[in-house]
Amino acid sequence: MESLAADVFSRACTSREALEHVTGKWSLLALSALQEAPHRFGELRRRVDGVSEKMLSQSLQTLERDGWVHREVRSTIPPHVEYRLTPAGAELAPKLLALIGFVEDRLPQVHAARDRHDAAH
Amino acid sequence: MESLAADVFSRACTSREALEHVTGKWSLLALSALQEAPHRFGELRRRVDGVSEKMLSQSLQTLERDGWVHREVRSTIPPHVEYRLTPAGAELAPKLLALIGFVEDRLPQVHAARDRHDAAH
Repeated sequence: MESLAADVFSRACTSREALEHVTGKWSLLALSALQEAPHRFGELRRRVDGVSEKMLSQSLQTLERDGWVHREVRSTIPPHVEYRLTPAGAELAPKLLALIGFVEDRLPQVHAARDRHDAAH
Repeated sequence: MESLAADVFSRACTSREALEHVTGKWSLLALSALQEAPHRFGELRRRVDGVSEKMLSQSLQTLERDGWVHREVRSTIPPHVEYRLTPAGAELAPKLLALIGFVEDRLPQVHAARDRHDAAH
């Protein structure tokens, strides 16, 4: 992979896994929330409505490992743990937000398309 | 939902499901492939390396129902079935491609981040 261009269309290319890590349901929402501001775990869990503690924790670990999210531990008593985007994550997040904004804006058309489809089938 | 803005952060908002339909592993790749050109089913299956017939079929049905993909049947003998983006799909696909291109380009950094993370933990 070092000398060849990455290609998500190839099942052998690890870019596909990297892409899945950022487009996964909870990862995508967590990254987008962190684009607004750094969050503590509990804050993030409330913002990403419906996520379980386990799923959010796993998503954050994966995002941290892939270099999109930084977990900052301040050694206060009690310790203060905060999640924030890395510089790479800060470049990635706007692309996710563009996608989210587009789908949110088009939601009425999506529902209309479904109604037409269901009426015809 | 008609009078309120859509909000993917709310578990009650159907935009979250609509978003998942386009960011799902195979849907995302299928939409991106269709951005290149219309494809027949078999062509699409070869392009989206590794997808099963069942998963591709399900993804295309969902994308068709949500109004992103059009399934065109030409009544030749044998019938010619082709998948293409709708105008809405053609607006959506570039946002997916921007995301894919970004992750592909950053793949070496993702691997480096993983190596650093694994060495530290």
